[in-house]
Order: sequence, then C-alpha cells, then structure tokens
Amino acid sequence: MEFDLVDLIRRHTAQQRDDVLLGIGDDAAVLSVPAGQALVMAVDTLVEGVHFPAGTAAADIGWKALAVNLSDLAAMGASPAWALLTLTLPDADPGFVAGFADGFAALARLYRLALVGGDTTRGPLCISVAVHGFVPPGQALVRAGGLAGDVLLVTGTPGDAAAGLHALQNPARDADPQHRRWHEWVIGRLHRPTPRLAAGIALRGVASACIDISDGLLADLGHICRASGVGAEIEAMRLPRSSALRGLHDDATALRFALGGGDDYELCFSVPPSRLAEVQAALAQIGCSATCIGRLVEGSEVRVRGEDGASLTIDHHGWEHFA
Amino acid sequence: MEFDLVDLIRRHTAQQRDDVLLGIGDDAAVLSVPAGQALVMAVDTLVEGVHFPAGTAAADIGWKALAVNLSDLAAMGASPAWALLTLTLPDADPGFVAGFADGFAALARLYRLALVGGDTTRGPLCISVAVHGFVPPGQALVRAGGLAGDVLLVTGTPGDAAAGLHALQNPARDADPQHRRWHEWVIGRLHRPTPRLAAGIALRGVASACIDISDGLLADLGHICRASGVGAEIEAMRLPRSSALRGLHDDATALRFALGGGDDYELCFSVPPSRLAEVQAALAQIGCSATCIGRLVEGSEVRVRGEDGASLTIDHHGWEHFA
Repeated sequence: MEFDLVDLIRRHTAQQRDDVLLGIGDDAAVLSVPAGQALVMAVDTLVEGVHFPAGTAAADIGWKALAVNLSDLAAMGASPAWALLTLTLPDADPGFVAGFADGFAALARLYRLALVGGDTTRGPLCISVAVHGFVPPGQALVRAGGLAGDVLLVTGTPGDAAAGLHALQNPARDADPQHRRWHEWVIGRLHRPTPRLAAGIALRGVASACIDISDGLLADLGHICRASGVGAEIEAMRLPRSSALRGLHDDATALRFALGGGDDYELCFSVPPSRLAEVQAALAQIGCSATCIGRLVEGSEVRVRGEDGASLTIDHHGWEHFA
Repeated sequence: MEFDLVDLIRRHTAQQRDDVLLGIGDDAAVLSVPAGQALVMAVDTLVEGVHFPAGTAAADIGWKALAVNLSDLAAMGASPAWALLTLTLPDADPGFVAGFADGFAALARLYRLALVGGDTTRGPLCISVAVHGFVPPGQALVRAGGLAGDVLLVTGTPGDAAAGLHALQNPARDADPQHRRWHEWVIGRLHRPTPRLAAGIALRGVASACIDISDGLLADLGHICRASGVGAEIEAMRLPRSSALRGLHDDATALRFALGGGDDYELCFSVPPSRLAEVQAALAQIGCSATCIGRLVEGSEVRVRGEDGASLTIDHHGWEHFA
C-alpha cells in the first residue's frame, strides 16, 4: 500500500522539472543542483492537535505542511525546487490522501516545486516535509547579521493566524455578514499561510538578518537578537494590523495576537537605514507590504514601547514546543 | 524547548564538513554540492510499534533511523553527506534524546555524515530522517536497468533481522550459551543494521539494477522486476544463511525469513554475467560478501526453485505498510 499512496500523491502533485534526474519510484531521488548555487534545506513536522486542530480539512493540512517549510526557505532568501514528504496516517484513507495531495499540489504548483520522494507509514497523523531550494553562495539571509541601528520590518499583518485559531475555537454566533467574512479570512490565514518567497529573494544581499514568524513575532525576533548579539525595540503603534484583526478584537488583544501569536509565516527582518528606501521599493514592486516596526539596539532585550514611550509588558512571549 | 533538544542532538552528533556552509541553528541549512556530482536524497520514517518494538533502546532507535535511510543511498550507489532529522516525542525526555543522539551519531561518524537540520515536536513517538549524498551523474544504481539473463546477487545474509524479531518475541529460556549468543547476534542485526554504502559505491557502473532489502527479499526483488520489465528465478539452496539463522531455525523457517523477512538492509542487485567476476572481486576487496542467488528471466514473475528444481510456494511475500 505504501507505493500506492506515494503514487497517488505523485499523480496529484506532478510537476516537471529538468533538474529532477530521477523522481519518485526508486530507493532515492537523483537531482541536479544548478552550477553556482548553494543548496538550502529545511524540515518541519506537523502533528494533529499540536500544529493544526483535529478536524482540519485534508487540503488545508496539505497546503500548510508545505507552506511552513517554504516559509523557512523564504526566510533564507532561497528559491524552492524540491520536497520530500513523509505521511504517517492512522489508516490508508484515500479520500484524506487525495485531499492532502490537492492542497499540497495547489501550493507546489505556484512555485514549480517537485515532490521527489516520500514515505507513508501507519501511525498517529503526523506529516513531515523537507524542502530544498537554491541561493547564490554568500547571499543567504541569516539570523546572525543584525546590527544595532538597523531598522526592523515585518511583512504582511501578523496576528491574523492567532485570530483565526480564536475564531475556530469561538465560532461566530450572530449572522453579521462582515463578522463572518472576517472570521473566514483569519481562518484562511491560519490554514493557508502564504510563504513570503518572493520577498525573501528580494531581500538577498540587503537584509542584515531575517527570520520567519512561526512561533510569534517576539519569540522569533528574540532568535534574531540572540544570534546577532543585539536587542530590539518595537513600537506597538506601528505594528500593522489587518482590518479583520482590528474588527474582531480590541487593541490589547490584537496587540497580543500580533506580538505573541504564532503561525503567521510573515518575515521579520532588519536592514541598514541607508537601504530602507531601496528595500521598500523592491518589496512594493512584488506587491508585498512591509512595515517598519522598530529597530535593533545595543543590548540583548526585546522591548515593546507603547504610545507614551513606556515599555509594555506582554504576557504571551510566543509559543514553544513542550512549553 | 525545541531549540534545546535540537542543540542537544547537534552536540552529540557534531561532525565537521567543509561543504556545510550553515548548519543547525537558522531557518534552514546552506550546503555546497561538489561540482560534477548529482544530489541523491531519500526519506524514511520510523514509528514505534510499526518499525521497531515498543521498549527498544533509544540508542538502537537512533542508529536504525539513520541506517535505514543510509541503506537507500547505498542502493543508489551514493556516498552520504548530510541528514535532516525530525523527532516527535511524547515528552521532552533528555535521557531518551541523549541515547537516541548517541546511536545516531555512532553511525553518522562512520560515514562523516553531518546532521544539518531538524525539528522536534510533541506527539506520539515518530522519527523521520532525510539523507542526502552524491553520485556522479549517470552512475546512480536504479531499479529499472535489469535484463533477462543478468545474474542476481545479494550481500550478507538475509533473514537475520526476522530471526532477531522472532528472538525478541520468544526470549531464550534455556541457558545454552551458544543459543544466547545467536539470539544476541540476530537481535543486533535487527536493531543495528549495516547500510551497504561501500558495496553500493563499488557497484556503480556495473550493477544493472539494485535495491535494498527493507520489505523482504521477494517483495523488493519484485520492485526490481516491475521496474525492469523482467521476471526472476531464485534458487532456494543458494540463499546465504548465517550460522545463527541456521542454528536457531529449521530449513523451512530459515528460508521463509530469508525470502520474506524485512529489515535486512542488504543489497539485492543484478549484473551482466560477463561482469560477475569483476563485481565479486570488487566486493571481496571491501570485505563485503555477495552471493549469486539466481538470475533475471523473461516474464514478470518472481519464482523460487527448490533443490529438485520445482517452484516453491512462499506464504509470506514480504511486509507492506497498511497490509
């Protein structure tokens, strides 16, 4: 049955690439890395009940399993090429697999990513995807290059995924159509995050440090600060919030979601002030919004300042596995 | 906690390689594939209770999780370089992780393989490893190249892992030291398989088809036959059996284990008769035994012939997931 499942997924996700010398169906895949490119790879696992609520649609799980991994490539400035997939399933449900493959394939097609290998086993629902891409040597975006004085930016509108989870857990009871649309939109942000691949590529050679927001803006910014040996100051008022987030929640909750909620898969990055205009123009050209939210500073702390300039205390510093 | 676990594993498995431009600790790893080499990659998942018995020592699980993947590289004739690891654990047990990392590292060191990325999550015990290696373009061993008339060989002594599982399920009750030694040896073959990497490399450009025996000799030979469009004939009497397998089991059981038992991670491969002597000399030079067990034939069936030349019926055609 293993081979049938893999074949089912292969057919759904079929994507031709000249650099796949041998794809699914042998003991391993054989691939050709373009001359003059470094290989970039990352792996992430999704477990039911931990990374997505039980009952999530198979297609949404398929999309998200790939999206969270592509987001890691985006954070490195890499362009995606290939993926390996391992799917552990309680039973061989072809309906689930077909739905999963459809969601996975819908995102893979956008980036011409080829699924080149995989493994299906029986067990508690668990999905692991390893993604591979390319970056010119020396141009990978890393966490460690931030300098005090660099401007801190974030793409998109963080906090939407946390609002989406909240919406799932507190279904809209009234029939207000605007409220329902906001609910649907934030749930979409949770289930179908957009990996910021074009933004990552645009930031090559410009961003001094970059990370994707999977564990929450503050937690992930903390990783940049530790790796770069700097602190950071965020101005709460500058945090971009979507209309849905503002419509659904009061300021305090929206701020908590934007700073502490995970699963946004936006990029948080730093640039030298001298290159800010250039970066904003480059991102505008690809239709990616990016907002200045603060700056890197001497020290090691991540501080959030309110409207009056005083430090805010945030009660939710992101989300950790096994926390 | 995720980062502490990954760091613990990183420290245990530390392996310096010049081609790792950026290892564990960022959003993704950045690697340099040597010029003139194709990239080979495979992924396999191990689930407790499916791929190893509950209660297996953490170090054995760590070894095996890497070994079964390196065996896929061996079957392609690839030399190993890097791995990604995802570990899903019911709780953050540092003792388990340290033991796992020790077993993983013991095997990684033998091949200078570097762990370059990973992910730890909470959930039912499940381990997924993606391995990456190199092969000169056009020299990868595949399943599809076998021709009728080619000689069929197998490395080592298949059936030992099945005998190991049997030994675990039926502990030796007497104190016969020879019996105990056999038990220990076959259990070692189950828990600590040896990926046949040097053999795979020696077979580059010579073997017409190759596969590793994970699902059982007959089942895996069936994959070669389907991919190559041929049948196969195995002579039961020629199947190599270890002293332990012969000592512990009667002929019928030993044959059943050798043909149908999975988890051996030996290589089964075909070579043109004209190159048999050359292959055997090359394998002898690296200390790898390889035995002629039959040949590829016209047709599509895999037949096993007994001492009198009549076809044997085998009641256990290997092991399939979800079977």
